[in-house]
This record gives sequence, structure tokens and C-alpha cells, in this order.
Amino acid sequence: MIHTITQQERSLLLTWTDGRQSTFHYLWLRDNCPSPATRHPSGQRLLETTDIPDDVRPASVALANDGGLTIAWTGEDHVSHFTPAWLQAHDYSRQSNPQAGAAPILWDATLDQANVTHDYAAVQQDRAALCQWLTAVRDYGFAILRNVPPRPGMVTEVVSLFGYVRETNYGRLFDVKSVANPSNLAYTGLALSAHTDNPYRDPVPTVQLLHCLQSEVEGGDSIVVDGFHLIEQIRCESPEDFRLLATQPLRFHFRDAETDLWAETPLILLDAHDNVCRISFNNRSVQPFNFAPEVMEEYYRAYRAFGRGLHDPANQVVFKLEPGDLFIVDNRRVLHGRTGYASSGTRHLQGCYADMDSLLSRLRVLAQENNGEQ
Amino acid sequence: MIHTITQQERSLLLTWTDGRQSTFHYLWLRDNCPSPATRHPSGQRLLETTDIPDDVRPASVALANDGGLTIAWTGEDHVSHFTPAWLQAHDYSRQSNPQAGAAPILWDATLDQANVTHDYAAVQQDRAALCQWLTAVRDYGFAILRNVPPRPGMVTEVVSLFGYVRETNYGRLFDVKSVANPSNLAYTGLALSAHTDNPYRDPVPTVQLLHCLQSEVEGGDSIVVDGFHLIEQIRCESPEDFRLLATQPLRFHFRDAETDLWAETPLILLDAHDNVCRISFNNRSVQPFNFAPEVMEEYYRAYRAFGRGLHDPANQVVFKLEPGDLFIVDNRRVLHGRTGYASSGTRHLQGCYADMDSLLSRLRVLAQENNGEQ
Repeated sequence: MIHTITQQERSLLLTWTDGRQSTFHYLWLRDNCPSPATRHPSGQRLLETTDIPDDVRPASVALANDGGLTIAWTGEDHVSHFTPAWLQAHDYSRQSNPQAGAAPILWDATLDQANVTHDYAAVQQDRAALCQWLTAVRDYGFAILRNVPPRPGMVTEVVSLFGYVRETNYGRLFDVKSVANPSNLAYTGLALSAHTDNPYRDPVPTVQLLHCLQSEVEGGDSIVVDGFHLIEQIRCESPEDFRLLATQPLRFHFRDAETDLWAETPLILLDAHDNVCRISFNNRSVQPFNFAPEVMEEYYRAYRAFGRGLHDPANQVVFKLEPGDLFIVDNRRVLHGRTGYASSGTRHLQGCYADMDSLLSRLRVLAQENNGEQ
Repeated sequence: MIHTITQQERSLLLTWTDGRQSTFHYLWLRDNCPSPATRHPSGQRLLETTDIPDDVRPASVALANDGGLTIAWTGEDHVSHFTPAWLQAHDYSRQSNPQAGAAPILWDATLDQANVTHDYAAVQQDRAALCQWLTAVRDYGFAILRNVPPRPGMVTEVVSLFGYVRETNYGRLFDVKSVANPSNLAYTGLALSAHTDNPYRDPVPTVQLLHCLQSEVEGGDSIVVDGFHLIEQIRCESPEDFRLLATQPLRFHFRDAETDLWAETPLILLDAHDNVCRISFNNRSVQPFNFAPEVMEEYYRAYRAFGRGLHDPANQVVFKLEPGDLFIVDNRRVLHGRTGYASSGTRHLQGCYADMDSLLSRLRVLAQENNGEQ
């Protein structure tokens, strides 16, 4: 509850009954007025922030009956009302962030795969099960779905449970099996060490799905590694390696007869809070490093430390996809690979790309339904 | 041409006939060996970088007949050959960057619209015309296409000339016209000040297209502003404003009954070279700023300076879309808006999203064809 309101030159100082104090600038309050005259029912701002006078000031400030603030403004016939709940939710003196994402659950080879294994029929029919599956993707960065009918095209139907297919030069979906004259090593029986997919795109697809239709080969086991976990180890053990990986840009390239994709990004991408928001690692498509000679050896040390972490069985979760199994990864965080397989017998996966933003949106809407919000 | 080869402890020092010197580390040379044993015909690396010994050294280094280098390696039966052209193209002592993009051509209200106006029939039929249109999008960040048949769905056919539709909760394409109970101000007759689209997504769509099917209203003129040009002005005039806009994160939100999208990004996103790679500005969907109180006033000063730049007619290119006109923007760079229009009469646009990576890929392939490379 607001205890005292103090009008300062350019801001209000609120003292709450628990003794805390919060600053709210007049310019900020006018800009964020929730009244219908300045906010459309859709929630979008109608006011041009540039139209507010530099010296915007209250003509009067009063404690409202609901415990919030009522402010009349000088120079215009407009009154703003802010509820106490809204003021607390947006109190920038506390740097509250009601939309901060759930912290990722970091994992290694000891992960209990039951935590990330879900059933397609349940997910399809039951919103709570759907919510659990998507929550696993959010928190662990990957999940396995069992009993997806092993029919071509099902992988895009699974995407429609949470979002939209990201079409690329590989199509809306693509077949992963051995072919002659492959443009990509994925289309061979060779082992693929753990990697993120398509770092040569900008924007990179943030979700990948792989659905197993046939698996009659020796080998071809799937491997996943939690890149965020590896990076936290590097950040603790060698801050200098972390800094190099987060600042020196890598270039990635893919080319075939109809495509010539280039992108540049550091291996570790940091957000504005210095949290890791994306890893890009693909030893097949990364281009010769182009750093100053005095940085080159140090960079290789850091890059190879990350690579060795990927190869360390202590970090790898390994499973074999059987027909009907589908796995989904957050391509910003979890690196995936496979062991090699023999050319006799058939291994046929179908894959496609999608994006995390719609997955997280779907999860929020489901959670609100569960909370009875709508 | 290579004049002298000096074997150092961990690297080769090449002295070229023009006197320049280049360092090539042994580890780097082994990692980037182009031989078929370590590079797949697709161009993808077969060698695991982590498998190279820390102390990798040449058993012998020789000048090859083509003027390049032939290196035999200790401890393995492998010989690498590097052509002089390859060494020069990847010479990191010169920090050469053969794939650095074309520098953007910055513009303001004085832009000659003929530079960005193209004809659909030509673009569809003639690869040189297609190349010119896509080059305009790359260099100016927007272009206008005339004579696109004003039929529903054509906007996605235009995308197929260079890439793939990015489907979202708005659909593969969306109709922009006045509707009752809109979830977005775009679906009213209100003016929309210049903005980037969908900053509440992550990843943000990097291309937007709008195709005019009907236009029988007063007003509704289109406005575009070169955000990179504005930011360069701010960088010169007030480095402190630039720094604030490039470091303090904004949060963007969109919500309707089935969607709840949040994303966070600074207004100016910098790449690893401190070049501006994306602008996110949308005064309608930006959330209340959540900065420390001591930063708030300074941030508003910077934010409003950018907003005033957008509103300044000296920065705006204005045109009216007539039926059959389509405009395309690089949504990372160019902000678009419209003037308001009356509710009498019909204004009907169809829009969709796509991505710049496939557009630039298409442009590279077309340019290679023109150069007779394939």
C-alpha cells in the first residue's frame, strides 16, 4: 500500500507502507497511462511518446480509492489512473521483470529421460499433457514424443500443436536418409558430431524436429548435449575462454546449386543482461577462422575446449529413435548429433524447423487457461 | 606470390613478393585442409577440429608448382595443399572478409524513388531484372513493385521469387483493412507512425511485403524511413544516446485470445563488429520501460530523439500504394507507417513475412549465374 506521495521536480517518490521507496518519472507515467484515450482495447499504445511535452507535470496527484494514483496533467484535459497492482508490477525501482523466462534446467548424461519423454496421443488430446510436453522443451531444451504415427508428413502435424513450420531451401520438411551425391553430410551414413542446425541462416531456426519413420540399421543413435550447461562450465573454469567465444564472430556457409547462405555470429550470443541466449556450433559448416593472428591460438583453445565438452560422454544423453519416435530440440541451446550407421538397411527420418516464440506463446496461453484466466 | 616461407614454432610466416607478411598457424592450416580426406565434396568439414593434436607440426613445407603451399604433417600420413588464391582469400593477418555484405546506401526524403521502383512482369520473366529488384532491397532496404495483379494471394507468389513465407499467428498472409474489434491497430483506419513489424517475435521476421488490392480512400499514404540513416545521425551527434539505445533492453508484447508473444531486445542491435544489424521500434507494442530510475530520463531523451527523427518529413519517403503496387521492406532496417484514412471507401492490402537470408542467397546465386560461374 502507498503510504506517502512526494512530488519531486521530475518524478514522484512513493513510499510504501513497508518502507520501500519507488520513483516514477512524470514522463514515464504519462507515457504509460492506461486510459482508453491513450491505450487501445487491444493493449496497443495510441499515444505518440514524442508528443509528450519535455516538461510534463502533474496538476494534481491524489491517492485513489483503490489505493492507486490519480493524476491530472497540466496543459491538457486528461486524468490518468494507475492501480496499485499495476504500479507494483511495473516498478522499475525494483527492476521487477514479470515476464522473465523460467530458468533453464541444466543437465548432463545423468538426466532421467522420463522427464523429457511424452506420448503423442496424450499431447494431442489433453491440454495438460500438451502443456507438460512444451514445458519440457522450454526447461530442458529438448523432448521425445513417442507413438507419433510413422507416416510421412506427420512431423509438420506435430508442429501445428504449437506453432508454424519454418520453410527453408530444404522444403517445409526434409528427408534424412543416405542419398547419392549429398549436398549435406546429414544425407550420408556418416557420424555427425553434436551441432546446432543451420547456423548459416539469419535468423537461425530456433526449433528442430526429427521424426523416425524407419530404423533398420546398426548404429545411428541420437546424441544430445546441453550447450547452456557446457557454457556455464566454461564461464566458471575459464572466463577468458568464455569471453573469446562470446565476442569473436564465426562465419557459417552452405552452398548447393540453388542456395548460397552466409551468416556470422559468435559461438555464444549474449543478451542485454549477459545471459547466453544462443549457441551456434557446427564444425561442418563453420568457415576458416578470420581472427587477428595474436588471438588465433587462444581462440582455438576455447573452441576446442567446447568441442571436447561435446564429445565427453559425461555430457551426452544418448537414445535410439525407433519408428514413431520424434524428438524436438531448442536449436539455440541443445546440440544434437548421431553415431554413424551402416549403408545396409534403411534409416529414414523426416525433419522440419519451427520457432520457439510461438511455442512459448502457446505455453503461456495454455497456462492461463489452466489458471482459469480465460 | 610467396617470396619466403619461415617456419616458426607454432605458425608459418609467409613473406609475399610485395613485402607484406602473413601468419598461418599450423593448427589453423591443418583444420582448414581442403583435401578430399578432410573436406566432403559438398564443402562440409569431415575433420573433427578437436581431433587435431595440440602440437600439430609440419614434417615439411614446400612451395608448390602453382605458387601455393604443400605441407606434410608429422605423426600422420597426410599432405595438405593450399593454392595461393585460397591463402590470400583467407589471410587473417589482413582480416580480409570476402563475404562482407554490400554497404547499405543510406537515404532520406530526397531519395529518387525511381531507384527502388521495379516492374513485376520484368522481375518475373527476366533474371537480370529480378537481380536488380533484390539488389535494391539489399542496398536501400525497401523497394516498390508495380503491376502485381491485384488478386488475393499474389503476395505469397512474389515471395516465391526469392524465398519462403514466414507463417505466423496472422497466417501465411494477412489482410490489412478496417475491421470491428481489431486486435491490432493495423486493422483500423488510424494513422500508424513508422515502426518495425513484430518486434514481439524472436526471431523477428526480417522481410515484410504489403500488396495493395483496393484503394478507394482519402489518405492511407505509405511512409518509409531509413532507420540505419537515423541511427548514424544519432551515433555522430550523441554517442551517449547511441550507447543507451544499443544497451538498454526494450520489451515488446502482443496478445490476443490465442497468442501471447513477448520478446526483449535493445532498440539498436549491434553485431560483433559494432555495426548496427537490427532496429526494433514499435511505440504501440513496446512495454513500460524497466530501467534503473537514474537511467530513465536519459533513455527517454535518446528514445524521443529517435522518434522525432522518424516524424521529421526530411527523413520520410512518402508514396501512395495503388492497386497492383507491392512494397517490400527489410524489417531490420527500414521503418514503415501510414497516414490515417477515412472509414468511407475501401482500402485493402495483403501482407506477409519472409526472411532476408534467402533473399540474399537468391541474389548471390543470380549474380554467380550472371558472372558465368555456373
